[in-house]
Amino acid sequence: MSETKAWSVDKLRVFVVDLLTGLNVPSSDAKDVANALIRAHLRGYDTHGLSCLVGYVEALKENRINPQPDIKFDQRTSWTWLVDGDNGLGQIAATRAMELALKEATKIGIGAGLVRGSNHFGAAGVYSLMAVEKECIGIVTSNASCVTAPHGAVEPMLGTNPLSVVVPAGKCPPFALDMATSSGSRKKVREALASRKPIPSGWALNKQGEPTTDPGEALEGVMLSFGGAKGSGITLLVDILSGVLTGAEFGGRVLSVFTNQERASNNGHFMLAMKIESFMPVESFKRRMDEELTRILNLKPADPQRPVFYPGYRSGLQEAKQLEVGIPLSVDLVGKLEEIGSLHGVRFPK
Amino acid sequence: MSETKAWSVDKLRVFVVDLLTGLNVPSSDAKDVANALIRAHLRGYDTHGLSCLVGYVEALKENRINPQPDIKFDQRTSWTWLVDGDNGLGQIAATRAMELALKEATKIGIGAGLVRGSNHFGAAGVYSLMAVEKECIGIVTSNASCVTAPHGAVEPMLGTNPLSVVVPAGKCPPFALDMATSSGSRKKVREALASRKPIPSGWALNKQGEPTTDPGEALEGVMLSFGGAKGSGITLLVDILSGVLTGAEFGGRVLSVFTNQERASNNGHFMLAMKIESFMPVESFKRRMDEELTRILNLKPADPQRPVFYPGYRSGLQEAKQLEVGIPLSVDLVGKLEEIGSLHGVRFPK
Repeated sequence: MSETKAWSVDKLRVFVVDLLTGLNVPSSDAKDVANALIRAHLRGYDTHGLSCLVGYVEALKENRINPQPDIKFDQRTSWTWLVDGDNGLGQIAATRAMELALKEATKIGIGAGLVRGSNHFGAAGVYSLMAVEKECIGIVTSNASCVTAPHGAVEPMLGTNPLSVVVPAGKCPPFALDMATSSGSRKKVREALASRKPIPSGWALNKQGEPTTDPGEALEGVMLSFGGAKGSGITLLVDILSGVLTGAEFGGRVLSVFTNQERASNNGHFMLAMKIESFMPVESFKRRMDEELTRILNLKPADPQRPVFYPGYRSGLQEAKQLEVGIPLSVDLVGKLEEIGSLHGVRFPK
Repeated sequence: MSETKAWSVDKLRVFVVDLLTGLNVPSSDAKDVANALIRAHLRGYDTHGLSCLVGYVEALKENRINPQPDIKFDQRTSWTWLVDGDNGLGQIAATRAMELALKEATKIGIGAGLVRGSNHFGAAGVYSLMAVEKECIGIVTSNASCVTAPHGAVEPMLGTNPLSVVVPAGKCPPFALDMATSSGSRKKVREALASRKPIPSGWALNKQGEPTTDPGEALEGVMLSFGGAKGSGITLLVDILSGVLTGAEFGGRVLSVFTNQERASNNGHFMLAMKIESFMPVESFKRRMDEELTRILNLKPADPQRPVFYPGYRSGLQEAKQLEVGIPLSVDLVGKLEEIGSLHGVRFPK
């Protein structure tokens, strides 16, 4: 990306909080949203960062997202909490749900927070990463609006359905898997079309239901899960955990908050926290994790120019660095944020 | 496969139990092994069925597998059990671990059984399926001997590392994902070489570390995870849960019991059971699952001759049918079982 200078976390947080509180979002909720969006940039998940604000602000102004949700909490067992997000910004209920899961995990070794009535929550990895400082393994899934065809079908019924699992380590950055269980995004297909490039095989079917690498054909057809039939099974599992089990929508009926809609999106999220001490002493575990992760880093790479790494390695290093030097943003994104800021009387920081 | 007649579960169980008890395996342990191997056939996982006996018997005779393991159980928290398989047949410790996980899940809604000191345990789905009759979600992972290169590497460090998740439904057969997290197996690559066919792209790298669909080149190179970088992250996660977290081997040091070896394989397995009632009333959940799964079955297929299904659908129907009519076995497998039986004075049933 074409980058400009770097922004401090604090300055960006003030901007997001001022913008959202101006739209009647309570200040503490706005801080949770800001933290989630900014951490996405720190980890390199820029597609799930501040650019989401454009859609959120529009939805808040049109009352498609409830700015002041009355979030409900129901403790169903000693370890499970059901959270109803009351159609607020997804980050609010999601943050609460992982906090509750971690509270129970700290007490009895395991906790779960299940969310219904939510919206787009940004990057799944932001919530699973909350488990690290509590010495827990964090698992987060969410369902999403209908764009992906299950394996063998030519109709979409699933979403990008992210899955994130974070496992603490010792000296190594934590293992942090954070992935869409769909293959590519339609956004990337449109980019390929604009630049006249093919898309990778396995991403899409044309409208006849045949595999295609032509972006134009793909846009008329359907997107696929990652990893063929196996990946499709995982995308469906994410919908079961996030939608069927939580009481949210499922089976293709979650809506996108980024497009106009008649009713609430009703996304669901599933969050599980497991304390390492439930299984083995945390220091032994961390030594073992460091050994596992160091082995990965030391493997001979297929391309000598591209060392082998594990999920979370580069994001962890990037986060540590950017917390010191600030977050670079693309010129394009800065322009959008300046525009949305000036529309709402909030100055984007220099 | 070239099939002969069908065998009843009872006759096959008697054969396996007689064969194993003749090799000093206690009768109750032999029954667990028999049930696991036979259920693999019932579900259509024939590669993880009775053919495994050939390798098991050899390993038992050479004392590479302990016929009479002193399995140790350590309850670490209210919901976690650590099981040491004492280098016995993998099915024995794995069955115990899932039983313990389900016992705790029945009491407090969640249970985990972590196994170290184990061996090849057959099909992961056999253990996750045990969760269904207890109205639980069952999750099972295992690590395995070193054949798979992590994404970006040309050296293997991971195994076939199976992942299975089973979710009960109402009238529909349960959702039952049961997959190797590697792409194809080396066995299938050898079959492709023999029949002079290419292997699918994404399965393997040649010895220069380049993608190849040539089976000969693949056999000189390394196998890959399913689903590219994302799938590789999941294969590594399975090693973390099954090996790092359980106290078993990990990071490429699990051995195969099917090849000669100097020390115990030390596979690890991770098993988690979550009771549906911990999240929502089970009857509501089953109605929602049936709705989810029926939607999948009713999707328009890409190939009109191949209806869309979900993981576990065909296996569930096959199991119900074969419990009535018996299990067909390939002529080749029957020949092997007759031979191994006659070598050990146990007649394979007609």
